[in-house]
Amino acid sequence: MAEMKTHIAGWDPQSITIRGRDLVNELMGKHSFTEMLYFLICDRMPTAEQTRVLDACLVTLMEHGWTPTSLIARLALDSVPNQIQVGIAAGLLAVGDVFVGTMEGCGRLLLDGVARSDRETYCREVVQAHRVARKPMPGFGHPFHKPDDPRPPRLFTIAEENGLSGDYIALLKQIGTELDRAAGKHLTINATGAIAALLLEIGIPPDIMRGIAVVSRAGGLTGHLVEEQRTHAARAIWQLTEEHIPYEDPPTHQKKK
Amino acid sequence: MAEMKTHIAGWDPQSITIRGRDLVNELMGKHSFTEMLYFLICDRMPTAEQTRVLDACLVTLMEHGWTPTSLIARLALDSVPNQIQVGIAAGLLAVGDVFVGTMEGCGRLLLDGVARSDRETYCREVVQAHRVARKPMPGFGHPFHKPDDPRPPRLFTIAEENGLSGDYIALLKQIGTELDRAAGKHLTINATGAIAALLLEIGIPPDIMRGIAVVSRAGGLTGHLVEEQRTHAARAIWQLTEEHIPYEDPPTHQKKK
Amino acid sequence: MAEMKTHIAGWDPQSITIRGRDLVNELMGKHSFTEMLYFLICDRMPTAEQTRVLDACLVTLMEHGWTPTSLIARLALDSVPNQIQVGIAAGLLAVGDVFVGTMEGCGRLLLDGVARSDRETYCREVVQAHRVARKPMPGFGHPFHKPDDPRPPRLFTIAEENGLSGDYIALLKQIGTELDRAAGKHLTINATGAIAALLLEIGIPPDIMRGIAVVSRAGGLTGHLVEEQRTHAARAIWQLTEEHIPYEDPPTHQKKK
Amino acid sequence: MAEMKTHIAGWDPQSITIRGRDLVNELMGKHSFTEMLYFLICDRMPTAEQTRVLDACLVTLMEHGWTPTSLIARLALDSVPNQIQVGIAAGLLAVGDVFVGTMEGCGRLLLDGVARSDRETYCREVVQAHRVARKPMPGFGHPFHKPDDPRPPRLFTIAEENGLSGDYIALLKQIGTELDRAAGKHLTINATGAIAALLLEIGIPPDIMRGIAVVSRAGGLTGHLVEEQRTHAARAIWQLTEEHIPYEDPPTHQKKK
Repeated sequence: MAEMKTHIAGWDPQSITIRGRDLVNELMGKHSFTEMLYFLICDRMPTAEQTRVLDACLVTLMEHGWTPTSLIARLALDSVPNQIQVGIAAGLLAVGDVFVGTMEGCGRLLLDGVARSDRETYCREVVQAHRVARKPMPGFGHPFHKPDDPRPPRLFTIAEENGLSGDYIALLKQIGTELDRAAGKHLTINATGAIAALLLEIGIPPDIMRGIAVVSRAGGLTGHLVEEQRTHAARAIWQLTEEHIPYEDPPTHQKKK
Repeated sequence: MAEMKTHIAGWDPQSITIRGRDLVNELMGKHSFTEMLYFLICDRMPTAEQTRVLDACLVTLMEHGWTPTSLIARLALDSVPNQIQVGIAAGLLAVGDVFVGTMEGCGRLLLDGVARSDRETYCREVVQAHRVARKPMPGFGHPFHKPDDPRPPRLFTIAEENGLSGDYIALLKQIGTELDRAAGKHLTINATGAIAALLLEIGIPPDIMRGIAVVSRAGGLTGHLVEEQRTHAARAIWQLTEEHIPYEDPPTHQKKK
Repeated sequence: MAEMKTHIAGWDPQSITIRGRDLVNELMGKHSFTEMLYFLICDRMPTAEQTRVLDACLVTLMEHGWTPTSLIARLALDSVPNQIQVGIAAGLLAVGDVFVGTMEGCGRLLLDGVARSDRETYCREVVQAHRVARKPMPGFGHPFHKPDDPRPPRLFTIAEENGLSGDYIALLKQIGTELDRAAGKHLTINATGAIAALLLEIGIPPDIMRGIAVVSRAGGLTGHLVEEQRTHAARAIWQLTEEHIPYEDPPTHQKKK
Repeated sequence: MAEMKTHIAGWDPQSITIRGRDLVNELMGKHSFTEMLYFLICDRMPTAEQTRVLDACLVTLMEHGWTPTSLIARLALDSVPNQIQVGIAAGLLAVGDVFVGTMEGCGRLLLDGVARSDRETYCREVVQAHRVARKPMPGFGHPFHKPDDPRPPRLFTIAEENGLSGDYIALLKQIGTELDRAAGKHLTINATGAIAALLLEIGIPPDIMRGIAVVSRAGGLTGHLVEEQRTHAARAIWQLTEEHIPYEDPPTHQKKK
């Protein structure tokens, strides 16, 4: 086997080292969880401004009430009540292509576009390509929040206040303008789109963006499980399903007998 | 079905409400992820001191290099490379009884003990009961960090500095003294034991403690997957296993032919 | 590292060997999945009678309509539609202590009891111990199937017809009689209890019984996902939950403002 | 909510109905697990020939020794030893795009091709398209089994013997011939390619093929966990990784201090 190293963490009986820093003396009590998360992903400590932006992204994604993730986490906890990690992990499996995948899709568009000299042309091409393929533009549109998702404007303000509103946020807005023009109607920038832009501004690449959503949602699901331990909503969800989606013999059954 | 409510989060087209607060105007940009995590678990915002203690606990548990969780996360990512959440969730399933379960076990002992009037008797009884049953005392001992786990003293200092070193930490130390006396040798308080005490000091009950470890480790695993995307250590782990644990016909095979 | 081997499977460029048999020439086309499952667990091929009993157990557990496992599998598929394995695996996580754990609990009671010389005394002691501790007797009782679960009598008949109704099934019935006597009312033997007895009759120990349920349920969930791909019930389950378990500000909210 | 039904399973206190059949009287003891699996997926019972082909596919995929799935399952069991379903489910998450996804990709190619009038042209186009895009042809090639995967010929024979070697198998072989011609060298049909063809022959569509692999592998992983309960290979795998992929400070560390 070719020689291979890990640069994440090592230990000896007296100490633990994380990316070259002594856990006990240099990290614990000196850095927040959010700073450490950035450190582990980007291999450098964030500035105070980057930390505020990352915190805003994490806080935005933590909780949205009933979602597939929270339904799954509660149903799983009900079956394995002493294994909280199973409830959380089962829920996190649904932080997937449909609900969060658009974040990395949007991030990749922005990364490509910012590398281009003529952004106006890029916006037109990208919007046109998605319209021709009848594919939704990642980072735009929301099933419930209409006409506008309330989170992106606040996220842009936070980036602005921290001196981190740069090319990626500008391009996202520019795509939005072009998208509205081409469609002849308004489509909101959504939270995952805005977060993709903010994460790029602080140096977190598309390939790992979904990890940020997963960490954030792990926190939200922990809150759901606290409530589930008291209310046992899982049993109600099960009963609702039994009542509202009842069994019926398959239409093919008669023929087969 | 009996009427049931959720108190976690709701939304309307213009806003999202989390535990009675407006996400956009009261939470985003105003609270860190760690504060929000506490808020979702405890239904109140933490003080600055509580936040620092919770951050210290989260930072302590994030990363310990090669562990079953990080091995699993990397192996899973290798098989489903576009589904980062699958890698993280697979790894989190192993944040279980063996490695983190002792946190809640220790937390329950401390909760019981602090409710007792005579703590000295309690320590003797608890230590004696575990010795008779030949069960390890949760929160004590460590396979690698000997004679002492370096993290607990630092955690105790952080609690002290924030005015949050109370009965639970005191009792944990008292049990440690009694344990050493009864065994005639020194057994270290370990990180999960110390964290159990700190979490109790800030009002997080044993039943949900494992959730804190899961959130923290989700952050650590995100860092592992960043490295895995570059190094593909999973393939090396697989190859090492093939080479060092080779196949051999079962001993029963000869007889059966 | 101490030398270690695996006795499960190996390969070379021309062949694959499973537990000493050549996959291509000795197993494929010659043995059913059920026989192979037994072979992998017990390290010997089953007799035709053992295969029929194992098939009956697998068929019994495959499907029970809406359960936490099927709800979770469908919700997860909805979020990660191209990753069928994620839907199935998420659902399988709920094949846990509450719904299937009783199988191994019952299996252990039967294993202990059959080793005892005086089974009548054993039945009295076991029933008494569970009554005193107010713990449900594993393998007995069913929330919906009252007064009797319809599956155990059929399972016992299948075992009988295959000459495999031995001490474990006899003891399970004997415990049932004693349980009814002590309680002064009838409590049904349930499917997991009966299956525990049948699996013991064919040599599958309690420690791995849950694996049988997992394999069986993996088949059932595959059927659910076929339907889900057409009907998108997950979206309906989500909507039902939104409507019937609405958000309300936490009662503590007023005080905190 | 629009009215919705499920056609999979229902129950009343006295009976359980699965796709219109009475579980106790029509299914248990009368059908094998493999037949039931087909019934749940295809909504009709298989013929004896179809059952033999499905059994052959299931047996082929059960076990391949050390793979990411078996490594993960064992590592997870080590952390949550009493939750066998967690070990199996964690492993199954890796039955994903890299190792099994090619089955559905190959299945879709075959489905498209058989619908075409001119199969020779289709083969040329498909092979050409993959070569131009430098994408591997799904269902062809194997990292270890060279020059030929030993399983496909046996699978084709089994299909032939059961009168189920039709257009899909023929087309797969035809693509293989064209692929070799275009590449000027031989590339093996692999097991997932052959199984894709056999599953199409018995009426199982590409969208659910991965489910067959998941069920099969669930059986294989159960066997791994039986061995793991005895040998604790997970600990050895962990130790091997510690030794062979050691920690080293990140190269960036010096600059940052």
